Amino acid sequence: MLSRMHLVKGHGTENDFLLLPDLDGEVSLTAGAIRALCDRRSGLGADGILRVVRSENDPESKGFADDAPFFMDYRNADGSLAEMCGNGMRVFARYLQRESLVGHSAAVATRGGIRRVRASGDGDVTVYMGLPRLLADRPIATAASHSGRPVRAPGRVLEVPNPHVVVDVADLDTLAGLDLTGPPSVEPPLPHGQNVEFVVRLGERHLRLRVHERGSGETRSCGTGICAAVAAAAADDGLERDGLPWRVDVPGGTCEVVWQPDGELLLTGPAVLVADVEVDDAWLRAAAGSA
Amino acid sequence: MLSRMHLVKGHGTENDFLLLPDLDGEVSLTAGAIRALCDRRSGLGADGILRVVRSENDPESKGFADDAPFFMDYRNADGSLAEMCGNGMRVFARYLQRESLVGHSAAVATRGGIRRVRASGDGDVTVYMGLPRLLADRPIATAASHSGRPVRAPGRVLEVPNPHVVVDVADLDTLAGLDLTGPPSVEPPLPHGQNVEFVVRLGERHLRLRVHERGSGETRSCGTGICAAVAAAAADDGLERDGLPWRVDVPGGTCEVVWQPDGELLLTGPAVLVADVEVDDAWLRAAAGSA
Repeated sequence: MLSRMHLVKGHGTENDFLLLPDLDGEVSLTAGAIRALCDRRSGLGADGILRVVRSENDPESKGFADDAPFFMDYRNADGSLAEMCGNGMRVFARYLQRESLVGHSAAVATRGGIRRVRASGDGDVTVYMGLPRLLADRPIATAASHSGRPVRAPGRVLEVPNPHVVVDVADLDTLAGLDLTGPPSVEPPLPHGQNVEFVVRLGERHLRLRVHERGSGETRSCGTGICAAVAAAAADDGLERDGLPWRVDVPGGTCEVVWQPDGELLLTGPAVLVADVEVDDAWLRAAAGSA
Repeated sequence: MLSRMHLVKGHGTENDFLLLPDLDGEVSLTAGAIRALCDRRSGLGADGILRVVRSENDPESKGFADDAPFFMDYRNADGSLAEMCGNGMRVFARYLQRESLVGHSAAVATRGGIRRVRASGDGDVTVYMGLPRLLADRPIATAASHSGRPVRAPGRVLEVPNPHVVVDVADLDTLAGLDLTGPPSVEPPLPHGQNVEFVVRLGERHLRLRVHERGSGETRSCGTGICAAVAAAAADDGLERDGLPWRVDVPGGTCEVVWQPDGELLLTGPAVLVADVEVDDAWLRAAAGSA
């Protein structure tokens, strides 16, 4: 049963989302409705939908309700379930704060476990991203380039906890010339696929990267990819867990990462709420049926 | 001075727009604000903005106020002024009808002159598109193809009144294989550039086409391009001005075109209102300044 649906459009470093406030857990989102809403031409357009529900009101999150009052029910634009998203979590937290549903900091339930978040200066949000795991593998990554000469280099493998391959690139020209319209090859490939980050060192504790996400192609930003790149660089430099900030530039903006002495990675970045949206009932019924 | 801005998102055959109701002509839209709103990642996303203003309340349309009570102030996503858009006009008319600002039919002022519109069945709108002009030129159009073999054929030149080159293509496979990421070449080129339509005959009075628009690249639909393709095909078949409907399939849907005995082309197609949007003040001020 669809009543006039209220959404909030927002983005974190240009990873964009439609928030669906549903505190009482009354909205059942079909895959067709998600695809219709996320279509950038015939709908509203977004990388995914973040349903905002009180943990106690959803069967998936009920068990977390004592520790994390809200559940981030994250769906990809194609309607599939997703676990966690660092950029999405910042936008989610910003909405909770705008609505005075939480204070300066909060714990949020996700399909990937509970994540802490806190406000951090002028519109920024910090997300506790968990502990990265560095593996010993050194697969060879190969990406096409607009110059015609493929870029080929060994990568580091990290789980954050989703799988990443981090590849150092010589300079900004090489980075800009990468053709990431197709997926880079990784040899040997990881068992469940991988996101691949191509990283240039711009200075001390300062990286620039582009990312190819499994399933999505090149994106403007990837929260776990940013964390993976910092963990790989810090490990190379012997700067693990030193608690000092790294700056990471991505196509959609800039984030900061701190690797804490306790091993957890903190991702800080912008979280922007753009507009409140009231969806037309008749449109959604028709579009959800055909999407 | 920006108050909380109200917009309506809609589309016509997946050519999508943000309508800005401003009946009293009080909103001054900067190019920066338009670019910020139309950005598909960091804003709301659209091909353009259609400001809805009473003709008497805008200096550009004041002279039309007796004949056309509303002015469609159309801006491209890059902030530049635009004259007319058949798909946009359908969405514009649908909004006027939803708000009971006009009845079954209306006359709307545009920078390209006054256009009549009328409701046409279940959500469809008919736009009076004016008289096409067929020129004698037969320039050679060449488009890249994913097959590696470029498609090369003579085109017909039409003004509707913007310039079009209509090119017949042998079959649907050839049409699907066209690589329109770059502009097709036209030799000799038209003095002010051109839109190029690639057209397959699917049956009697039934066309399918893809279009490359100057300035925009390949689009999901182009109202004047649909009209140009029908006028070219009708001229080939000796069916000019016979008042019978043609069906035209485009990537974003289907439209109908009638070439009337009086020479005017009527374009009928869907006009969909998706959602009402309230833009966040602080976001717009910040984004308009940096876009």
